[in-house]
Amino acid sequence: MAATLLSALLVEILIPVAALIGMVFALIQWFLVSRVSVGGGQASINNGYDQSLLDDEEGYDDAEAVALCAEIQNAISEGAESFLITEYQYLGIFMAVFSVFIFLFLGSVGGFSTKWVSCKANPSELCAPPLANALFSTVAFILGALTSTLSGYLGMKIATYANARTTLEARKGVGEAFIVAFRAGSVMGFLLAANGLIVLFIAIVLFKLYYGNDWTGLYESIAGYGLGGSSVALFGRVGGGIYTKAADVGADLVGKVERNIPEDDPRNPAVIADNVGDNVGDIAGMGADLFGSFAESSCAALVVSSISSFGADRDFVAMSFPLLISSAGIVVCLITTIFATDLFVIKSVKEIEPSLKRQLVISTVLMTLAIAAVCYLALPSTFTINVVGHQPKVVKNWKLFFCVGSGLWAGLIIGYTTEYFTSNAYQPVRDVADSCRTGAATNVIFGLALGYKSVIIPVLAIAVAIFLSFSLAAMYGIAVAALGMLSTLATGLAIDAYGPISDNAGGIAEMAGMPHKVRERTDALDAAGNTTAAIGKGFAIGSAALVSLALFGAFVSRAGIAVVDVIQPKEFVGLIVGAMLPYWFSAMTMKSVGKAALAMVEEVRRQFNTIPGLMEGTVKPDYKRCVKISTDASLREMIPPGALVMLTPLIVGTLFGSSTLAGLLAGALVSGVQIAISASNTGGAWDNAKKYIEAGASDHARSLGPKGSDAHKAAVIGDTVGDPLKDTSGPSLNILIKLMAMEGTRDGVKLLCRLEEIVGGCCHCQVSLHSAKSEHEESLTSKFIVLSLVWRGKKCDILQDLPLVP
Amino acid sequence: MAATLLSALLVEILIPVAALIGMVFALIQWFLVSRVSVGGGQASINNGYDQSLLDDEEGYDDAEAVALCAEIQNAISEGAESFLITEYQYLGIFMAVFSVFIFLFLGSVGGFSTKWVSCKANPSELCAPPLANALFSTVAFILGALTSTLSGYLGMKIATYANARTTLEARKGVGEAFIVAFRAGSVMGFLLAANGLIVLFIAIVLFKLYYGNDWTGLYESIAGYGLGGSSVALFGRVGGGIYTKAADVGADLVGKVERNIPEDDPRNPAVIADNVGDNVGDIAGMGADLFGSFAESSCAALVVSSISSFGADRDFVAMSFPLLISSAGIVVCLITTIFATDLFVIKSVKEIEPSLKRQLVISTVLMTLAIAAVCYLALPSTFTINVVGHQPKVVKNWKLFFCVGSGLWAGLIIGYTTEYFTSNAYQPVRDVADSCRTGAATNVIFGLALGYKSVIIPVLAIAVAIFLSFSLAAMYGIAVAALGMLSTLATGLAIDAYGPISDNAGGIAEMAGMPHKVRERTDALDAAGNTTAAIGKGFAIGSAALVSLALFGAFVSRAGIAVVDVIQPKEFVGLIVGAMLPYWFSAMTMKSVGKAALAMVEEVRRQFNTIPGLMEGTVKPDYKRCVKISTDASLREMIPPGALVMLTPLIVGTLFGSSTLAGLLAGALVSGVQIAISASNTGGAWDNAKKYIEAGASDHARSLGPKGSDAHKAAVIGDTVGDPLKDTSGPSLNILIKLMAMEGTRDGVKLLCRLEEIVGGCCHCQVSLHSAKSEHEESLTSKFIVLSLVWRGKKCDILQDLPLVP
Repeated sequence: MAATLLSALLVEILIPVAALIGMVFALIQWFLVSRVSVGGGQASINNGYDQSLLDDEEGYDDAEAVALCAEIQNAISEGAESFLITEYQYLGIFMAVFSVFIFLFLGSVGGFSTKWVSCKANPSELCAPPLANALFSTVAFILGALTSTLSGYLGMKIATYANARTTLEARKGVGEAFIVAFRAGSVMGFLLAANGLIVLFIAIVLFKLYYGNDWTGLYESIAGYGLGGSSVALFGRVGGGIYTKAADVGADLVGKVERNIPEDDPRNPAVIADNVGDNVGDIAGMGADLFGSFAESSCAALVVSSISSFGADRDFVAMSFPLLISSAGIVVCLITTIFATDLFVIKSVKEIEPSLKRQLVISTVLMTLAIAAVCYLALPSTFTINVVGHQPKVVKNWKLFFCVGSGLWAGLIIGYTTEYFTSNAYQPVRDVADSCRTGAATNVIFGLALGYKSVIIPVLAIAVAIFLSFSLAAMYGIAVAALGMLSTLATGLAIDAYGPISDNAGGIAEMAGMPHKVRERTDALDAAGNTTAAIGKGFAIGSAALVSLALFGAFVSRAGIAVVDVIQPKEFVGLIVGAMLPYWFSAMTMKSVGKAALAMVEEVRRQFNTIPGLMEGTVKPDYKRCVKISTDASLREMIPPGALVMLTPLIVGTLFGSSTLAGLLAGALVSGVQIAISASNTGGAWDNAKKYIEAGASDHARSLGPKGSDAHKAAVIGDTVGDPLKDTSGPSLNILIKLMAMEGTRDGVKLLCRLEEIVGGCCHCQVSLHSAKSEHEESLTSKFIVLSLVWRGKKCDILQDLPLVP
Repeated sequence: MAATLLSALLVEILIPVAALIGMVFALIQWFLVSRVSVGGGQASINNGYDQSLLDDEEGYDDAEAVALCAEIQNAISEGAESFLITEYQYLGIFMAVFSVFIFLFLGSVGGFSTKWVSCKANPSELCAPPLANALFSTVAFILGALTSTLSGYLGMKIATYANARTTLEARKGVGEAFIVAFRAGSVMGFLLAANGLIVLFIAIVLFKLYYGNDWTGLYESIAGYGLGGSSVALFGRVGGGIYTKAADVGADLVGKVERNIPEDDPRNPAVIADNVGDNVGDIAGMGADLFGSFAESSCAALVVSSISSFGADRDFVAMSFPLLISSAGIVVCLITTIFATDLFVIKSVKEIEPSLKRQLVISTVLMTLAIAAVCYLALPSTFTINVVGHQPKVVKNWKLFFCVGSGLWAGLIIGYTTEYFTSNAYQPVRDVADSCRTGAATNVIFGLALGYKSVIIPVLAIAVAIFLSFSLAAMYGIAVAALGMLSTLATGLAIDAYGPISDNAGGIAEMAGMPHKVRERTDALDAAGNTTAAIGKGFAIGSAALVSLALFGAFVSRAGIAVVDVIQPKEFVGLIVGAMLPYWFSAMTMKSVGKAALAMVEEVRRQFNTIPGLMEGTVKPDYKRCVKISTDASLREMIPPGALVMLTPLIVGTLFGSSTLAGLLAGALVSGVQIAISASNTGGAWDNAKKYIEAGASDHARSLGPKGSDAHKAAVIGDTVGDPLKDTSGPSLNILIKLMAMEGTRDGVKLLCRLEEIVGGCCHCQVSLHSAKSEHEESLTSKFIVLSLVWRGKKCDILQDLPLVP
């Protein structure tokens, strides 16, 4: 056993310390945000900014406007809370049922035995009883779900706390507003990264007390954490995504189109729901999604290494490599954040995007050094990674540096490419804006083409990362590459969450009747926010692709598949049908947004028609009803796409066997990545093309504007089309590919096997893949009817007595 | 050797007779179309219809309008001819260079030897000299290219001949006009099917005189026919696709948007180019595409069977099975056509779509019987199909019935699904139309969602066909399944070509100032034409998928790859990058349309601004200049997407080896199918949603209209967005997946091998895949820089001395 330079004790100190530092830093940021007090409302009557800094434009000091800000903030916060509480109720039921199911299912595999048994891999050692595995897996699952829920909730809280503060600071200047929004984003980022790490770490330490030397059992139970996180993401991303766009599209359709009132006008009954949507979809949803990726890649790496030499050697330091990477990431992100908030404070609109871009570069460069250090300190110079069905892979520690680093840098490349294609500082978005000159149709055509084109470089970057890390350290390499991309999670989330906060700030400025200049500043922040949101989505889909591949690898190992040969009929059919699934799913989510938006439209129309004085602004609309409608509709509408994701792997696996399922997962992965990237970039570009025309910052932009011109109207149409693409169907695809891959793995395969037993398949025989295949073909060719033929012809290519490898 | 019931002599009679019947039938249809004479023009002064049939509406009898029709027809015909002639010049150069290249390349592999050598598979037999193979392959290549060119040209000719005649017949009634357009479509369909068959058959018979018993060499040379056909399709589909939409979008942008004049207004200088586009893109391009699929699937089947027991047994009847299927198809389509033109003549607008749908059903049912007969008569009861790297597959003759039948019926299912999603007789298009109520944005969102959703059933149908035919008869099964889908080619092309002819007829009616009722009738025909065009595109992509898979199978066999294992890094990376290529390609083609359309916009603007009296209608615009601009722009703009298709397989294969290339081809195939189907259905649905509002045939439709209403304007935007999707980027993807798969195969692998030699790879060692892989991984992990590592690490996974198996 090669020694590591770090000691186990030090690791046990370093990880929680890093997490604590992250939490403390998040609290400091929160405190700094809270120093901007919202006057007039419940907070304080001091309006919280230095009078001498104020411009002398009228309206800045209007106490009524400030009070209104506080009121609106309150309404948004209450709406978001009400949605999340409702969502968590559904989620709670789902999780409770799922937990019981996992427990009963895993327990029943071993007959709820409470006896320690001799391990399969090494019969001289004792492995934990099945009942304990079932119990601990369930606990880990619940922990993952709770941590994700908590992080999303806290993120929403700080976002709705900071939005009005950003508006108020925007009176002073764009730099001040930027800092507030960015700090609030950091709170979310650091809390999520630190919580995710510390809970996982504590779970490992506590579980270890019971498991002792049975590390395989230990880390397999821990893997429940990833599944828990991902399941929450289904609700957050799909439900939240439908919510936010139903409200947005619904508000726009009646407000802008029918009633001809501006965006974010307080007379629009759906305006609060719209602003709530930014917080529940883009903040809580995105958080749950990235948390899920983080948890899954950590768990995938832990499970793989537990059955490799790290586990066999009981090398706790090396085992903790994934956690150490994340710990280092928190510290790196902390330093990076200080660059934006203290070292290079922005002064003008033009500096916003460079400042955010600088965050990406600084965190990536620093993280590269940190990865090198962690690889040097925490890994033995040589170790082996088990690859099921092949010789174990001998890996040198510096190779893992390239694995993690390839993921990290692929993330940076995705970020830069996304910025290029979605920021209105560059040609692509300006071309799209220019195409508005000839109407909405050319705008849509150019936008779609831009989205398609923006896929090229990110996919190549992901491909290079996959190739490198796969070649260097097999599936462990992929898992840590995903971790590498997510290692700067805190910074990524900060610049991502900053967007919706600025969006909200703009909405509040409009609703509170703030002067034009304030709105201009928040719009500039929001435009940069569209870009960072797209970057965040790029990271999310990139890491989802890597994580899914790691899980997919786990699945094929687990199902005893040595090869997934796409020139075999079953696999190829799986591949082509899998590539279709993201289209089906997107059709569903877009339709869901459409239906939910229509429900919203009806309510808004009803209010305009039946509440006298609403259009005149003398009576306030019933915001809460709109919030409720969006809440109910989104939770109802997420069921069909959710069912597609959850049931397809089970149905395909049960009916057609694991070879087809393997093809299906591969197809869904490679096809989903493309649609997700193109959808989020297209949407971001359209939004910013509109903002480019509105801002009129150059001669070219002014020639297209102003607001209300034909070109601007065309741009608004593009923006509306982009809304569900970028905020619902695109990002939801991450969940599709991750959850499907997740279901394929571990318990999924066992579950398939059970289902097969129930429907009368044979699962007890442990035949090799090849003999299964030839038997299958034989029986196939002797029967006529397709389905029964597939059904009966299916032989045991899923093995019941699965080895305890991932 | 099991005997076949048919004798070789009978086969040699039946095939040419079937082709001749097809040709004669086409000529009869042409004659019937020609009986409608276009008065005033060059044809005759008799206006060619029975006066007593005329409605008494004013304008019907206007000799001036008839003369104008003839004049417009002439202009369209000349424009189309001028484009095709220019295109064929470029094509000619491309083909000449390519022919020389093929000849030199294939000849050089064997050192231009003219000696018969002992065969590799069976050293006791003599095989034709390399020089002869090179020569005959080149001849077959040229034959394929010429046949495709000729078929496209003739199709264009009859279409531009029939368009004005359809307009004139529309004065009598919708039924009369329908028959003319449909007969003209049949001319195209039958000529193409018969020409394709007879040229292939004659080439086989003549080549056989030289090759004698060397059937492997014979059918390998014949395979050049498929490559020739596909290469023409690149020009037809991509060049023609850019042409048609550049003209259409350009004409609409200035005419409808800027000048506010109706579609097809004769004052618009681009209006002739627009109508020319329908003929060169949708007629000649579609023809070349489907001809390519037909030629490739025939050749793939022939090559596979030549190295299987049919070839070994010198069983000419069984060898001719693919040709016999096509022969039977011609006869079946002939009977089917009579149902539409003579047995069930349509009387009203409502009967148009059912009549076309009936064509699909009748041809499929009859063809099913014909396939059974051909399988029974032309196949031995048992035979073997060679599968490289595996045991030969023993196949019974009835199994081929299911292979061919699965393709045929998958085609019908695709047709019906497409009809459901694109015809305004059903809910999906009506929902899209309804969404126009809330503006263009919802229209685009609903349209995109519809396109995504419409992918589900066609992909499942293709998947079932692949699974069945693959399982039953390996790659031969796939090839004949593709043939099965294309067996009713003549009918498919007839109902497809009918669309653009009706579209032209409508344009002519508008330009000639025909009464409103005539335009209404042609619009009804055109609406059905949008659906049939989408159906045609569905067939094209479905058959392209099957053909590509057959070619892909040929490639992997050829490259000595026993498995394409997507859980290996090289293959997976190929898969994900391959899945990206259709997006890149679509971005390019959409951008090309954009650029070409802008060139058109400038010219149209210039003419409106500089030609006095143009807007007033007193002076005629310079149509020819617009035709020339569209011609030049489209041929220039097709170069980048063409280069992407042609170069990617070569570059990837050379740099990264055949494993990655195999993954790439699979990824491009499964991803391209989805985009192609969704793009063409989305576009068709938008077009018909617009037509639904314009026609106002129901209360619901009237509540959205009339022309010029807000909902209609929103629908027009959707229609314009759909134009490049359905007519350029979508259908061009067929070419992407087919040509890339084609390049991978046969000569492609040899070429890769040569390139590798040139750049210093080693190609002479004939190592097994597995040892190549492990060597590769070893060298890979010992080097740092990615590219050089990939480059140098590449070992001989392409074998120079390839066995003569496909």
